Amino acid sequence: MLCECTCFILLTALIDLVHLVLFKNICFKIDEEVAKLLELKAHLGGDDGKHQFVLKTAKGTRDYNPKQMAIREKVFNTIVSCFKRHGAETIDTPVFELKETLTGKYGEDSKLIYDLKDQGGELLSLRYDLTVPFARYLAMNKITNIKRYHIAKVYRRDNPAMTRGRYREFYQCDFDIAGQYDAMIPDAECLKIVHEILSELDLGDFRIKVNDRRILDGMFAVCGVPDNMFRTICSTVDKLDKLPWEAVKNEMVNEKGLSEEAADQIGVYVGMQGGMDLAERLLQDQKMCQSTQACAGLTDIKLLFSYLQLFQVTDKVVFDLSLARGLDYYTGIIYEAILTQAGVAPVAPETSNEAPTEECVTVGSVAGGGRYDGLVGMFDPKGRKVPCVGVSIGIERIFSIMEQKAEASTEKIRTTEVQVMVAAAQKNLLEERLRLITELWNAGIKAELMYKKSPKLLSQLQHCEESGIPLVAILGEQELKNGVVKLRNVATRDEVDISRADLILFPALLLLDHHHYHHHRHSDSH
Amino acid sequence: MLCECTCFILLTALIDLVHLVLFKNICFKIDEEVAKLLELKAHLGGDDGKHQFVLKTAKGTRDYNPKQMAIREKVFNTIVSCFKRHGAETIDTPVFELKETLTGKYGEDSKLIYDLKDQGGELLSLRYDLTVPFARYLAMNKITNIKRYHIAKVYRRDNPAMTRGRYREFYQCDFDIAGQYDAMIPDAECLKIVHEILSELDLGDFRIKVNDRRILDGMFAVCGVPDNMFRTICSTVDKLDKLPWEAVKNEMVNEKGLSEEAADQIGVYVGMQGGMDLAERLLQDQKMCQSTQACAGLTDIKLLFSYLQLFQVTDKVVFDLSLARGLDYYTGIIYEAILTQAGVAPVAPETSNEAPTEECVTVGSVAGGGRYDGLVGMFDPKGRKVPCVGVSIGIERIFSIMEQKAEASTEKIRTTEVQVMVAAAQKNLLEERLRLITELWNAGIKAELMYKKSPKLLSQLQHCEESGIPLVAILGEQELKNGVVKLRNVATRDEVDISRADLILFPALLLLDHHHYHHHRHSDSH
Repeated sequence: MLCECTCFILLTALIDLVHLVLFKNICFKIDEEVAKLLELKAHLGGDDGKHQFVLKTAKGTRDYNPKQMAIREKVFNTIVSCFKRHGAETIDTPVFELKETLTGKYGEDSKLIYDLKDQGGELLSLRYDLTVPFARYLAMNKITNIKRYHIAKVYRRDNPAMTRGRYREFYQCDFDIAGQYDAMIPDAECLKIVHEILSELDLGDFRIKVNDRRILDGMFAVCGVPDNMFRTICSTVDKLDKLPWEAVKNEMVNEKGLSEEAADQIGVYVGMQGGMDLAERLLQDQKMCQSTQACAGLTDIKLLFSYLQLFQVTDKVVFDLSLARGLDYYTGIIYEAILTQAGVAPVAPETSNEAPTEECVTVGSVAGGGRYDGLVGMFDPKGRKVPCVGVSIGIERIFSIMEQKAEASTEKIRTTEVQVMVAAAQKNLLEERLRLITELWNAGIKAELMYKKSPKLLSQLQHCEESGIPLVAILGEQELKNGVVKLRNVATRDEVDISRADLILFPALLLLDHHHYHHHRHSDSH
Repeated sequence: MLCECTCFILLTALIDLVHLVLFKNICFKIDEEVAKLLELKAHLGGDDGKHQFVLKTAKGTRDYNPKQMAIREKVFNTIVSCFKRHGAETIDTPVFELKETLTGKYGEDSKLIYDLKDQGGELLSLRYDLTVPFARYLAMNKITNIKRYHIAKVYRRDNPAMTRGRYREFYQCDFDIAGQYDAMIPDAECLKIVHEILSELDLGDFRIKVNDRRILDGMFAVCGVPDNMFRTICSTVDKLDKLPWEAVKNEMVNEKGLSEEAADQIGVYVGMQGGMDLAERLLQDQKMCQSTQACAGLTDIKLLFSYLQLFQVTDKVVFDLSLARGLDYYTGIIYEAILTQAGVAPVAPETSNEAPTEECVTVGSVAGGGRYDGLVGMFDPKGRKVPCVGVSIGIERIFSIMEQKAEASTEKIRTTEVQVMVAAAQKNLLEERLRLITELWNAGIKAELMYKKSPKLLSQLQHCEESGIPLVAILGEQELKNGVVKLRNVATRDEVDISRADLILFPALLLLDHHHYHHHRHSDSH
């Protein structure tokens, strides 16, 4: 009996143990198997059971077709020109970093980091932004001052919302100034850059909101927020661009347990917007002045605005006490640019069921940044700090808007830069076409021909119309005999015989053609 | 007794079961823990036990500093200009693909693919080249003809040899022509492009070796290689650029079991190099002509050379029967470009202990490609084929050489494009400098200033010397009073007073300055 009993107890215990050990794996396995079966099902093309590939890109990613690339190139050119105009160098870093390089930099967002599979060797993660690799680069190379831009893709396992320009693989365009400099001069230049880029891209009206982490922290302190709640209250304040004050207050008081009195005091401050005048008024504010931090921030805001006036950009910059950017590493000035024109709908606010509270609808942030004086020190073995300030242009939203504009426009986007199509009017002139196109290529002229022995003239001309090639150099028996080509303007259908030597002198020729074109139109009107 | 026995048996069985279940996890866990401990050890900076980051990039990767980026930009500009001159569009694809998209495309090399960690969702891998994503893109979008280039990074978990320009993250510059066209016209254009790019980059002399998969296969057939050995013998032939014939023959016969007679026959053919004449001679070759495949390949090589003559590039192109590129997906013409000047040592042959067999030392392949008519069909649900031919420029080796050349050169590489430094000759002129630089920026002039309230004139001038800024616009009390700036040529130290309005008319001004400079030198010589 004792034996049976022991046996039973042992058995039960062991079975439990096995269950315990297996359970986690099993749960996981079941999920895995279900996922595999679903995937398999997706692959089976109907009932024939034939395996076929899922022809798609990874979730949250996309290909860029030639038209999108043409738009992308245009946007990048505008941005890079601006960065270069301000004297920036550029660097590049690998797409993945040691996992630990990214650890502890992004707070809660760390869960969105893509890890690489452990295939033996180092543990790696795809970069989450360009700021942390930049700080790692500075610390690793002991660089204490640099002005650099970096345009590259970053990766976040976020919930994609691709129609609104939110992807898992997306570009960031970062400009940063690292170095120990006099207050607010580099900070002001970052805002000048945002102003220049958004003006040049012609995306409609915009505002650049400015605040300072020290003002936020000081404000929380004087309003009676306990020290350990600064971060969480700050992230609630950050929602003010999407939620009305009542909802934000509700979260502070009922979810986060802040006193109603403190919340109401915050409410007064975060409703404030202005310019240098507001900074001056707050420097006189009895309550705010209790915080030396806030005072230092307000003094810098004043200084910043004085520089912004000289940079002629104060028309778009607003000192806004409700701005509270999410990232942990900011230590001073912060800013965010938003487009204010309701016309550009695709980048609507996240919670689209909320009514906008102001007359101008926020269509989302298109640039943001701030000062982060502590980040490089996190990488330095001796903790040596390198003060930094920077801005990141949210290029994907800008692409989305530019694409929409291009779709709406009647103007056709060219995806190649071909200037001349080398064509034949008769059969069997491939060799002659190859000879002519070689002359053009060797002279640096962008030229194309059809890869057929004897293409029809019509199809050669059609190709020009479709892809926007402005000129056709036509060869025929007669032209070959006379040592000329017939140069045809695709748009006007004007034709002119021209010597092959002249054809190579292309820029001059274009003018000639332009003249001819006008002349022709002129004579038409008589 | 029975009971005890049962109990014992049950116990043993269950314990075994538990062991079995635990074992795999434990083995794995131990490996994991050891790795973690090793990592931890690496982090401990000596004996103080203070944790610190390993400040490095992932194995086989590197950062690009501003100087390297300047070189990279120059190389890319040359390559992209050439692609555009030939009428190519560009596309972009995500850095990772569904794992199965890459499966079965690279043969043995598949083990070098980077996988992403399974964090729930799709199984992903980093792209291994740009050709497979291109084929996936064509099939997915049902594109049957396109001429596109794509410049992007690809990833291979290979043994890095970074001094020789071999990395785990590296750029590929691909140009491909997809579509059903008349034979050899697009193929010839690819070779023309390689010729143009390598000439323009000025990397010294080069050769482009050409062969055809059909000639190789036909050659193997007529030499008596069994069908199922074509692939493996082909990959042995591929080693002829690094090994002498004797070593290659030895591998064929003693490792792969080919008959000595067959090997010797192959030996005769793979020693052959020439141009169109060689193709003609082989078309008369009794043995070779037994293979209809080889004949088709030889006829195309003849046609190819006739087009290459018209393109004026036959000086560098060699029909070389020993060329046998590794990748499985080639179906027709194949080619590879090598630099032949011994001067550029860093990209030495892999096995540097082997003596070069020819008078010109091979410094490694810098471009390669070929025709792959079957790849797109692998992605198409109905197997529809899209014929493709393309070329990939091996940009990393080119970077290495360009970097070496830059190091050796006395000419300093500029990493910014700043044209004017806005400087002050006296203290407390920050506001005036900000006002002036705003005028310059707003006029599109690339300008910089020091982020100090009162920088010393000398340190401002020094910065110009160091970073190659050609002009300094100097402000002082006197200049402000007169509404001018003192424009200083950094190289010549010439100074001239100029109105602020004239300063904005920059291009004209530069000419003026140039003139002034020459004038000054002229008067010096008297």
